[in-house]
Amino acid sequence: MIQIGIVGGTGYTGAELLKLLINHPDAKIRVVTSREYTGSFVEQIHTNLRGCIDQAFVEPELKELIRCDIVFFATPHGVSQTFAPSLIDHGVKIIDLSADFRLKNNSDWELWYGTEHRCPHLLDKAVYGLPEMNRELIRSSQLISCPGCYPTGVILGLLPLLEENIIDTERLIANCVSGASGMGKNANTGNLFSEISENFKAYGLSGHRHHPEIEQILSKIAGRTVSLIFIPHIMPIIRGLYSTMYTTISQPNIDLLDLYMNRYQEEPFVRILPTNLEPEIRSVSGTNVCEIGVHQTSKNGNAVILTAEDNLNKGASGQAVQNMNIMFDLPEERGLRMKTHFN
Amino acid sequence: MIQIGIVGGTGYTGAELLKLLINHPDAKIRVVTSREYTGSFVEQIHTNLRGCIDQAFVEPELKELIRCDIVFFATPHGVSQTFAPSLIDHGVKIIDLSADFRLKNNSDWELWYGTEHRCPHLLDKAVYGLPEMNRELIRSSQLISCPGCYPTGVILGLLPLLEENIIDTERLIANCVSGASGMGKNANTGNLFSEISENFKAYGLSGHRHHPEIEQILSKIAGRTVSLIFIPHIMPIIRGLYSTMYTTISQPNIDLLDLYMNRYQEEPFVRILPTNLEPEIRSVSGTNVCEIGVHQTSKNGNAVILTAEDNLNKGASGQAVQNMNIMFDLPEERGLRMKTHFN
Amino acid sequence: MIQIGIVGGTGYTGAELLKLLINHPDAKIRVVTSREYTGSFVEQIHTNLRGCIDQAFVEPELKELIRCDIVFFATPHGVSQTFAPSLIDHGVKIIDLSADFRLKNNSDWELWYGTEHRCPHLLDKAVYGLPEMNRELIRSSQLISCPGCYPTGVILGLLPLLEENIIDTERLIANCVSGASGMGKNANTGNLFSEISENFKAYGLSGHRHHPEIEQILSKIAGRTVSLIFIPHIMPIIRGLYSTMYTTISQPNIDLLDLYMNRYQEEPFVRILPTNLEPEIRSVSGTNVCEIGVHQTSKNGNAVILTAEDNLNKGASGQAVQNMNIMFDLPEERGLRMKTHFN
Amino acid sequence: MIQIGIVGGTGYTGAELLKLLINHPDAKIRVVTSREYTGSFVEQIHTNLRGCIDQAFVEPELKELIRCDIVFFATPHGVSQTFAPSLIDHGVKIIDLSADFRLKNNSDWELWYGTEHRCPHLLDKAVYGLPEMNRELIRSSQLISCPGCYPTGVILGLLPLLEENIIDTERLIANCVSGASGMGKNANTGNLFSEISENFKAYGLSGHRHHPEIEQILSKIAGRTVSLIFIPHIMPIIRGLYSTMYTTISQPNIDLLDLYMNRYQEEPFVRILPTNLEPEIRSVSGTNVCEIGVHQTSKNGNAVILTAEDNLNKGASGQAVQNMNIMFDLPEERGLRMKTHFN
Repeated sequence: MIQIGIVGGTGYTGAELLKLLINHPDAKIRVVTSREYTGSFVEQIHTNLRGCIDQAFVEPELKELIRCDIVFFATPHGVSQTFAPSLIDHGVKIIDLSADFRLKNNSDWELWYGTEHRCPHLLDKAVYGLPEMNRELIRSSQLISCPGCYPTGVILGLLPLLEENIIDTERLIANCVSGASGMGKNANTGNLFSEISENFKAYGLSGHRHHPEIEQILSKIAGRTVSLIFIPHIMPIIRGLYSTMYTTISQPNIDLLDLYMNRYQEEPFVRILPTNLEPEIRSVSGTNVCEIGVHQTSKNGNAVILTAEDNLNKGASGQAVQNMNIMFDLPEERGLRMKTHFN
Repeated sequence: MIQIGIVGGTGYTGAELLKLLINHPDAKIRVVTSREYTGSFVEQIHTNLRGCIDQAFVEPELKELIRCDIVFFATPHGVSQTFAPSLIDHGVKIIDLSADFRLKNNSDWELWYGTEHRCPHLLDKAVYGLPEMNRELIRSSQLISCPGCYPTGVILGLLPLLEENIIDTERLIANCVSGASGMGKNANTGNLFSEISENFKAYGLSGHRHHPEIEQILSKIAGRTVSLIFIPHIMPIIRGLYSTMYTTISQPNIDLLDLYMNRYQEEPFVRILPTNLEPEIRSVSGTNVCEIGVHQTSKNGNAVILTAEDNLNKGASGQAVQNMNIMFDLPEERGLRMKTHFN
Repeated sequence: MIQIGIVGGTGYTGAELLKLLINHPDAKIRVVTSREYTGSFVEQIHTNLRGCIDQAFVEPELKELIRCDIVFFATPHGVSQTFAPSLIDHGVKIIDLSADFRLKNNSDWELWYGTEHRCPHLLDKAVYGLPEMNRELIRSSQLISCPGCYPTGVILGLLPLLEENIIDTERLIANCVSGASGMGKNANTGNLFSEISENFKAYGLSGHRHHPEIEQILSKIAGRTVSLIFIPHIMPIIRGLYSTMYTTISQPNIDLLDLYMNRYQEEPFVRILPTNLEPEIRSVSGTNVCEIGVHQTSKNGNAVILTAEDNLNKGASGQAVQNMNIMFDLPEERGLRMKTHFN
Repeated sequence: MIQIGIVGGTGYTGAELLKLLINHPDAKIRVVTSREYTGSFVEQIHTNLRGCIDQAFVEPELKELIRCDIVFFATPHGVSQTFAPSLIDHGVKIIDLSADFRLKNNSDWELWYGTEHRCPHLLDKAVYGLPEMNRELIRSSQLISCPGCYPTGVILGLLPLLEENIIDTERLIANCVSGASGMGKNANTGNLFSEISENFKAYGLSGHRHHPEIEQILSKIAGRTVSLIFIPHIMPIIRGLYSTMYTTISQPNIDLLDLYMNRYQEEPFVRILPTNLEPEIRSVSGTNVCEIGVHQTSKNGNAVILTAEDNLNKGASGQAVQNMNIMFDLPEERGLRMKTHFN
């Protein structure tokens, strides 16, 4: 059994991670931490886990964490960079769901997060945990930086086009819509039921931290600077993230559906839909699947790519477990096959 | 124009009050206060009022409030009892939407609210602002204590039965379900969209502050001690409050529908439904109406009374305006006729 | 592998049954029928099952169904009674999620369903599929009639009290609230999103078909006629059913929590909560668990029992699978341990 | 009083129209029709109008309609073109909320609606009822074709840019998201609460009937053919329509906010937001206001225009009443000032 540590187990990604790992046949949750709720039983905070776990939250302490085979960080930014160097030294693997190791450029970090990075020397060692892009690097890495929820859907949607070098990279557009759990579990007036329900709006137009992350990865894939217009919105559903991407194809005769089918045919968690179907949230919620729809809207080269994902699962904790499975040479679908949501 | 002061304008009842008074032909909002948001424009906090009001929040100061003809308190408990004596002395009328003057018994206050009351001598002067019960007292009073949202629906539903003295008052049951706005606009994890949506639960079983308020009023109507089992629940809608009440009729042959029709026939904001229809939230949301359905479920005297109200309107701010209309000898429906909600 | 037939696979209980059986390690879905969608792939109708099942709907034909070890009926009433006699004769087991075999009294059937029953001789053979009540009968039966969603929660909530014979059975009250999926997947204006959302109401006050079913079972448990006031309501959540039950205890000194803990201590799918916690929908949605809270509200013998269940899972398809596990001597939790829902 | 006829009063736009006109000081509803519900009282079908209107639905008959000063059509396509010629002949004004007179080109009509148009000679007489574009034409017209909900938000958002001729008209993008009421009140499985809630998806990618309507009007404004990529989505709110539009500005130094402020400064129902605010549904729901946000996202000329509207109000019935006010020389805000929705 893989001995698991979870640092930051009280938020929504922490809860999803707990749920997935409780049901994972090769995982044993050894320690789950929370500064705020130290001493409380997990099921007191996550009533949906009543009867599924009898552990209590503990303080995050290095001496406990180094007894784990792997430690997940489901924390606000700034935490994993504090623990990472010691854990690495002790041979513990790390899967970081926070932003700490996402930006490769130290000055970008300071620009977007407003603090000095505590271990910039690890930025290069961290592998971006998108298996569809970096599977082999993930397998041999000790430090995984999991993609944000928006980057997951946008990158999976644009990857085949950028690899084939057939789109205009000057003016890519990603119109994204997230469920409320993407805003986190912080007690914030703006996230109250009475504020979110029967409402919809764009936000973060002055700059969203996922923007430089997406552009960095897209540029790496393309081998040149990619410029993305990224507009996130919030909608009244608990979980789900929908991305509608607009681009221009330089080779209008190419069969995009074919291209996507080929690129992702071996991927267990990417589902390309036939042209008459659209991705929808309910088909992916509670799963680690990213659905992709491909539309060539007109003769003049316009294409619309649609992706649907569960922001807490493929967009966070499911993908983290997928990374773990790869790192421990387990079948990639282990613990991730069961649909864990309703519809 | 009636010069209006609103103390505590940032919560949901404050917002509803602002909306109603902005549209009231005889009201002029002179001052609206908020300690937390002093200096902010009202429409910055209540984006739904964008373009409807150009005022900013100010500190609550007596010297401003005494220039008003009437001051509404849409505050947490403890505030209105601080201002009330001076306002009363200056001849300013008060409509208090908080709990400060609801319980007549000073020791009940201390028991349920955990503090000493600052002006117990005013408890007897305060009139309980349920027009269907106290219209004439309201007309001549200077200090109105508005009913809570749960008490409004429960009392209106049981009033005719208690006045007629035809039910068992030992074991009345009120099963109530409130929308999320009833929990207030406080940033509280439990009220987040992701916690309320797709959920439902009872709460407050160890004791809810509306319970002694309801029993006090029911007992007053009945002329003897009434014992109520009161179980509140929370549901994922923004506004609305539904009460399903169970009682036993001592005179099973009485025609309850007739009784209710007669009792409320002159009431502009009570709507008795024919037996084949049930009250529903969408028929009352955004209005000051309380819908009542009456069902005699069997020969052995059981009756079920159903009421639907908008917790922010008839359950709070609409009723407050109704009280104001009465106090200023305006037509009772003034500013309250228009349906302000969707469905 | 148990060869499974599902008659009526297009509704919500059918979809839930498919999801559970797809993930059941001992089940093989051999045939799933739909008259309306014959020829369509299951995943076309249930987009949430995309990628999980490659079968198509077929016509319901006896010659196919008799090749199954067990046939589930997730149909409107009237269908299973047509197929049951032949299936029984061929030694096929039946789990009927419809109402066809719920009422033991043929004339009750005609009264509530308006048709003559086609095989009244099987009414007595059918075992009511509530494992917590009838486990041993279920084990040896060939024909299981699964409880309705309302009966499941109400009966589990009242069972210990009736078995102990400590409550007034003349005036039991069940105030129940169901999610919208309980109304079925029929295209009905009243079930549109714009009608259900931001609304709440009682319904079925003139009589609900689950009422005689509940009273029949409660009376059987009590050994005498039990009279229940049953008021169902509908709320804007997809799945979930909450029952708040009011009763009077004849022995006020009894410790109800103890009683419930003892009665259900061996039950894998009943969770009794400590007194400071309330059942909530999110703790049970996507699971086969029924949560129960017990409150003795006052000295004079009043008790409030709260139950929460997932109407499609423990209230329908999960319970059906639990019955199957019992009938085939499998561990009762087989295929039902994983939480299949979000929160 | 203006004598009003409403043909097709049972859908959501019909209900909204009724609500607005009931509260309009100059309007008197003389006749409201429904083939399906002839004889039913309006408040039986629209329970939210209980107590507001005592009329019953009647058959749509010309002899009744010609007694009205104005007839609104809130019908599926195909109805208004049947009645229009006779009503025109009798001097009755028409405001058509259906699609019948939106496309100017008869062959476009046949292409998109699959039938021959019954009075193509009236296509040219019909004025497109967008007051911000056509106020003077509306004033003197007898036949108004009201814009669809999507066209309203998209056209208002792009109008100033097209009039100024400063954008690339080859590749405009409109990413639109509609609430469920936009799908109509038809009993359709896809519109059930359990299908829409907790879901989100694009639809109509193979072609949406509002697409040619939008392109026709944008082209007219621009004075040349405008090519729009239009992707509608559906979200789980009752009412609201959000459009996020992407374009490239040929004069990057222009101050767009200034441009919009100037263009719309006299418009009572367009609200331009300062750059730090985003339009949101709750600010416009229940009102006839279209909120617009303007963002120049980068130096290279990209602009993002955001609009929020209430699809049933400014996107349909509110705009219809605005047109009526213009046609009858009433103040344009008459009957439309009050906020009729919650938040």
